Amino acid sequence: MNTLAQRSPSQTHRTLTSDDIEALAVGAWILGTGGGGDPYQKLLNMRLLYEAGRQVTLMDPLMLDDNALVAVLSNMGAPLVGQERLSDPEFALKPLRMMEEYLGRKFDAVMALEIGGGNGVHPMMVAALTGYPVVDADTMGRAYPEAQMTSVAVAGLRCYPLTMADIRDNEVIIPRAASWRWMERISRKACTEIGSVAATCKAPRSGAEVKQHGVLYSVSKAISLGTNVLKARAEHSDPIEAVLSSTKGMRLFDGKVVDIERRTTEGFLRGQTRIEGLDGFAGKELLVHFQNEFSVAYLDGEPIVMTPDLICLLDTVSGDGIGTDALRFGQRVSVLALPAPAVFLSEKGIAAVGPRAFGFDLEFKSVFEESNT
Amino acid sequence: MNTLAQRSPSQTHRTLTSDDIEALAVGAWILGTGGGGDPYQKLLNMRLLYEAGRQVTLMDPLMLDDNALVAVLSNMGAPLVGQERLSDPEFALKPLRMMEEYLGRKFDAVMALEIGGGNGVHPMMVAALTGYPVVDADTMGRAYPEAQMTSVAVAGLRCYPLTMADIRDNEVIIPRAASWRWMERISRKACTEIGSVAATCKAPRSGAEVKQHGVLYSVSKAISLGTNVLKARAEHSDPIEAVLSSTKGMRLFDGKVVDIERRTTEGFLRGQTRIEGLDGFAGKELLVHFQNEFSVAYLDGEPIVMTPDLICLLDTVSGDGIGTDALRFGQRVSVLALPAPAVFLSEKGIAAVGPRAFGFDLEFKSVFEESNT
Repeated sequence: MNTLAQRSPSQTHRTLTSDDIEALAVGAWILGTGGGGDPYQKLLNMRLLYEAGRQVTLMDPLMLDDNALVAVLSNMGAPLVGQERLSDPEFALKPLRMMEEYLGRKFDAVMALEIGGGNGVHPMMVAALTGYPVVDADTMGRAYPEAQMTSVAVAGLRCYPLTMADIRDNEVIIPRAASWRWMERISRKACTEIGSVAATCKAPRSGAEVKQHGVLYSVSKAISLGTNVLKARAEHSDPIEAVLSSTKGMRLFDGKVVDIERRTTEGFLRGQTRIEGLDGFAGKELLVHFQNEFSVAYLDGEPIVMTPDLICLLDTVSGDGIGTDALRFGQRVSVLALPAPAVFLSEKGIAAVGPRAFGFDLEFKSVFEESNT
Repeated sequence: MNTLAQRSPSQTHRTLTSDDIEALAVGAWILGTGGGGDPYQKLLNMRLLYEAGRQVTLMDPLMLDDNALVAVLSNMGAPLVGQERLSDPEFALKPLRMMEEYLGRKFDAVMALEIGGGNGVHPMMVAALTGYPVVDADTMGRAYPEAQMTSVAVAGLRCYPLTMADIRDNEVIIPRAASWRWMERISRKACTEIGSVAATCKAPRSGAEVKQHGVLYSVSKAISLGTNVLKARAEHSDPIEAVLSSTKGMRLFDGKVVDIERRTTEGFLRGQTRIEGLDGFAGKELLVHFQNEFSVAYLDGEPIVMTPDLICLLDTVSGDGIGTDALRFGQRVSVLALPAPAVFLSEKGIAAVGPRAFGFDLEFKSVFEESNT
C-alpha cells in the first residue's frame, strides 16, 4: 500500500503524535483478531509518557541499513493474564537491555513482533524510554499465538537468541534452539512457569532481514485504520463500514454472543464462542474457535473462514476490537474477515499458520477470491 | 575426616587411577540414596577416556584460591529417563563451555553438584576432556532432587547464572532468578520440556565459597567407601558391613521388594516401594517414599527414617546401590541410614531438605542420636 516511492523524504522518519498513538491502539486491536492483548493498558502508559514529553519516531523500514540491528519485542503469554498482571514500560524494556548485554551491542531500532493488540503498542513504550525509532513493520501483520507463526520463521531465518523477563527478578536467555518449534516449546514453558506472562526480546533481525522478510508498513496501516474508525465515530457514521473500506475486508456475520468457553492453559487462552445471528443473519449461528487469537469460524456447522485470513470480532456500534479475553454474553458483534499478508498464503505460510497448525483438519480456503488463485 | 593437616602435600593434587574411578562409581551410587542417576553409563565413558590416555586430577578444596572459579556440574532430570537417553562426555561439557562464553572467563576447576549416583562421576568426564582438576567436594554430600537442596543454597549464596543444554541443539541460560526456588521452578520446566534430562552448569562458585560452604572431601569419601565395598566382595566378606563400618551407618531393615509404584512426572521420578521383612525383620514391612531419592521410610506405619539422614537401599549380597529407577519385585535389599552432612542438620538445612520439603508433615528426627542433641 505505502511504498517508499509514494512517500516524501520527510516521511521516512516521522514523529508520532499522541493522536497517532490513540489511533494505533484502535487499529492494532482490530488487527489483533482477538489476541495480542488489550492495548488499553499500554495506551495509558503511552499517554503518561507523552505527557511527560517523550515521543516516538516511526521509521520507514526501507531506510534501515542492511547491517542495522533491530529488536523484535513482545509481551508473551495468555491475554487473560495480561489483564490481571499489568505491565509497565520498564518491564517491556528489560529484555531489550538483557539482549544488548548478551550480544555486547546496542540496537539501532525496535519493532513489534506482531502489530495486533497491545503488542502493536508495546515497542512504542520501549521507544519512548530509549529514543530508539520504531520500524514501521512487524512479523505477523496481525497477532498469532506461537513463535513459529511469523514471516521471519516462514522465511527460515534464525530463531535465536531470545531473552525473557518477568516482573520479579527472573530472567531467561535461550541462546540456541534446534528449530522455531523448539524455541516456542521452551520459551512457552518458561513463560508459563513465571505466570503465563513475560516480556520478551525475540531473535534480533538485521535491517536486510526486516526489509526482505518483515510485514512492512503495518504500523502505518494500523494507525490509518484506527484513524478511520475514530473519524467514523466522531461523524456518527458506521465504524464497521470504515474498517471494511480501510482494509478491503468482508463482513461475515452480525449477531449476539450467546456462549463463551474459555480456559487459560499451557500458556494460552483457548476456547470458543457461539454467536446468534441478528438482522440479515437471524436464524443462523456462528461458532468461532480461538487460541489467543480467533482461528476458525463455522457457520451452522460449515467452516467459512480460517487463518491466515484475519477473523475480527468487533463491537457493532463502536467498531472496537473485542479480545478473546473480553468476550461475554450479550455483546453485539460484527465478524469481519480481512486479507492476510501474502507471505502467509504461500505453501510454507499455510503450513505455519493455516487451520492445521491450530489442530483443525481443514484445507485452507480464503474468503477472498484473489487469495485462492 | 580428611583435613588438610592430615594430608601430605602430594595429596593436595592427586591423579585418580582407573581403580579410583571404579570405586567412585560404587561409592557414589550408595551415597546417591536412590538418585543422582545410575553411574554405570558414566563409568563406561570414563573407562574409554582412561583407555585413551586421559586422566583426572583430584584437588584438595583447601588449595583453591579464594578467587578461583569453580564450575558446578550435574545431569538434571528424572533418573529413569537418563537410563533411556544415554549421555556422553561432550554433552556434559557443553553447559560448561556455554557458561565460560557467557561469563567471558575460563574456569579453574570443576566440581559435582551432588556426589550421589552418576552425578558424582559426571564432572570426571568433563575433567578428562578439559584437563580441569576436580575439586574434592560437592554441595549435597549425597543426591537431592531440587536446586535449593544444596549446602550453598542453605548458606544463602547466589543462585544464578545457570546454563543448560540438551542432546539436540537447544540451550538455555538463566542469568538471574528471584530465589533458589524460582531457579528450581524455571530450570525444571525447561529441563522437562527438552525431555526431562539436561546437562547443566549451575551457579559458579568462588574458591572461597567452596572452602566455606562446600561439602568437603566427599569425592574421597565416595572412593574410600567404594574401595571398601569392592574389597569386601573380593574377600567374600559382607559388603553391607563394609558400608556400615566405612560410613558409621546403621542397618534399618533387610527384606524383599514386594511392590513398586513409580511415575515420571514434572521432571522427577516419584513413587514408593514396599519391602517385606526377612531374617530378623520377618513379619514387618517397610514403606519407602521417593522423589528421585528416598525421602521417608515407614516401618509398619511408623516413620523411622527421613531426610536429611541418607536412606540407602542396597543389594544385600553385593552391597551395590539400587536406584529408584531400578527397583523391582523380588530384589533382596538392605536398608541403611547414613549420617547427613552437618549443614543439613541446621534449622535452615532442615527447612531446605527435611521431610516437610518433600511434602511429609513430620518433625525431623535423626536415627543417629548425636544428630538429635
